[in-house]
Amino acid sequence: MTDLLLRNVRPMGGAATDVLVLQGRIAEGPAPAGIATEDGRGALLLPGFVEGHTHLDKTTLHQPDWLVNEVGPRIIDKIDTEREWRARTGHDAGAASLALARAFLAQGTTRIRSHVDVDTSGGTQHVERVLQTREAMKDVQDIQVVAFPQSGILARQGTDSLLDAALAMGADIVGGLDPCAIERDPVRHLDIVFRLAEKHAKPVDIHLHEPGSMGAFSLELILERTRALSMQGRVVVSHAFCLGDIPERERDTLLGQMAELGVAIATTASASRPVPLVAPCRAAGVTIFGGNDGIRDTWTPYGSPDMLERAMLIGLRNNFRRDDEVALAFDCVSRAGAAGCGFVDHGLAPGARAELVLVEARTLAEAVVARPARRVVVSGGRVVARNGALVA
Amino acid sequence: MTDLLLRNVRPMGGAATDVLVLQGRIAEGPAPAGIATEDGRGALLLPGFVEGHTHLDKTTLHQPDWLVNEVGPRIIDKIDTEREWRARTGHDAGAASLALARAFLAQGTTRIRSHVDVDTSGGTQHVERVLQTREAMKDVQDIQVVAFPQSGILARQGTDSLLDAALAMGADIVGGLDPCAIERDPVRHLDIVFRLAEKHAKPVDIHLHEPGSMGAFSLELILERTRALSMQGRVVVSHAFCLGDIPERERDTLLGQMAELGVAIATTASASRPVPLVAPCRAAGVTIFGGNDGIRDTWTPYGSPDMLERAMLIGLRNNFRRDDEVALAFDCVSRAGAAGCGFVDHGLAPGARAELVLVEARTLAEAVVARPARRVVVSGGRVVARNGALVA
Ligand SMILES: [Zn+2]
Ligand SMILES: [Zn+2]
Repeated sequence: MTDLLLRNVRPMGGAATDVLVLQGRIAEGPAPAGIATEDGRGALLLPGFVEGHTHLDKTTLHQPDWLVNEVGPRIIDKIDTEREWRARTGHDAGAASLALARAFLAQGTTRIRSHVDVDTSGGTQHVERVLQTREAMKDVQDIQVVAFPQSGILARQGTDSLLDAALAMGADIVGGLDPCAIERDPVRHLDIVFRLAEKHAKPVDIHLHEPGSMGAFSLELILERTRALSMQGRVVVSHAFCLGDIPERERDTLLGQMAELGVAIATTASASRPVPLVAPCRAAGVTIFGGNDGIRDTWTPYGSPDMLERAMLIGLRNNFRRDDEVALAFDCVSRAGAAGCGFVDHGLAPGARAELVLVEARTLAEAVVARPARRVVVSGGRVVARNGALVA
Repeated sequence: MTDLLLRNVRPMGGAATDVLVLQGRIAEGPAPAGIATEDGRGALLLPGFVEGHTHLDKTTLHQPDWLVNEVGPRIIDKIDTEREWRARTGHDAGAASLALARAFLAQGTTRIRSHVDVDTSGGTQHVERVLQTREAMKDVQDIQVVAFPQSGILARQGTDSLLDAALAMGADIVGGLDPCAIERDPVRHLDIVFRLAEKHAKPVDIHLHEPGSMGAFSLELILERTRALSMQGRVVVSHAFCLGDIPERERDTLLGQMAELGVAIATTASASRPVPLVAPCRAAGVTIFGGNDGIRDTWTPYGSPDMLERAMLIGLRNNFRRDDEVALAFDCVSRAGAAGCGFVDHGLAPGARAELVLVEARTLAEAVVARPARRVVVSGGRVVARNGALVA
């Protein structure tokens, strides 16, 4: 049964109305007799949330023991620590990703882009297992898998073939990582990434932590390849920290090129370093959307499967105080996330997949700052969670 | 009855033990026969939290209608909007402060420093009403009231007399505000503030939003007066944003003087601008502690009476990922908050006032990043809240 009538709900905080769901999609017109009904009791209705950048395979959220973090400060410390920890503990990316995906769904997230490690130590096993999670969740949650060379491609011979295999077995997107700072050979790294994208006709999503002019240089190389391969609208740059600390004029030049090429930005809105801000990106016509990055893993103890919390952190980072500004923060975990990741049929318009979240809040801004419990989550045409817990 | 035996709890995440409370204080030795007992079931035990900088009088947290924020971007926009809004709506600082103080207590906060507006529009009425809240809560929560010239002292004639009156009627601390940027006459402003402190023998807490070298200049003037009046250990600078964006060598010179004079820093750990970081302050011997600043008021829709959330935001802002670093973030809403504000008998040592918070968490770091429900809050020798709600 994938038909449902949701009565007395306030879409995006507007006037109370009923929402009809037929065959799992938002429909118009009179409700068929005998349809299942859910009383929204005047709650705020939001579209299912979009997690645009996470690592489902890395989490320890589901594990009985707390993971004590004693990792060093550099990115390379974190990369090496994690790879060794995975091998030592036999970390199961299948159980991890399934537990986290389910936690996301219980909190109203119906679309997820997850980067998944591919390296010469774990091979493609983490991708294989997250693909199983994708399959298990497919009726109620859309998961995109990025084949992500977390330990680099160039330093570990054979990683390119492993990425090739991961894409052949069903990974959706080609990942990449700091072409200069980690890979030390930006042209070779990016040529491998974009060649794989061309071969498999799949989009690209590159982690770019590099700051300042180094990051801007790598970004230019990414934009050149996007143009040369006509990959307009199929490239995401994750983090793009450099856009937070280069001069505004250089930033705006890059943003102009990104807008023209449809290159989007995934951001965590990190509080501890310069980041691309939402307002100048939007003003330039660049899609910027939000994600947690890792959640309770060897990299970080922070993160949460609650995308309203990420919206709040985006709002705080961007100093969004007015209600119309807080709405932009929500947009980053909603419409913009779907647009940037290429998730289709998202939203509250007729025809969209009925992924609906009910919360007790007076306004959209209150939903973001108070992050109230998810009273009801609908996906696949049925109620999948109540009060933060999945229904059987 | 202010005696209690708390069984099977893990102080700060350590080994399970029992904690004895006699006459409202943590005690040693065998428990008297017939004492009231609370089973901690292995929960993590934390000392009552400290909110070191908030504005109890400003909140709209308790109001039935959502306050739509349409305020302009400058500090002066916010000041003027709020003063007019208060006069227009008859905002009741008594009801506001009591509701927020109670919400803090339900989430485990037993010590609060609140700035309270004094101006020529509202006079001392907001202070009077928050003093009533202080009185109402005194058996279970310690509230310090700062007489705060939110609209400036110099621009509105008579504000100095109103501050004088607020201190005479029981306000604990003399407030101040941006001596250059808002007051336009740093010497006159600070001389009034410190003269009032001398007259009433009360400490000082100055809002210093000024960035860069302007803020550093104002800070120098504050330090000179602290030294001249022998006010060592009795001055707090709130925000001190300038310490986040002046050159490190100048910053460290100022921090050295602050350490020598016992001048502490209150920080929200704002994500959207440079702030003093915890590590260099601590390395210099300066006490730095956390606070929300405003909570759901005309200034900002953000903020929460959950000080574990503030600890998380401090951790995120300072990029504290290791467990030992996350513990520093917690310290900012605990020991350091008490030290910086001069709250006595705080902590978990025998003799301290028994202000105890039980949460289900495996470690201190988990308590900060997950912010679990407060299972039990003890204050004044009895259980005052369970599962986030005050008991009758
Ligand atoms: Zn990532
Ligand atoms: Zn303040």
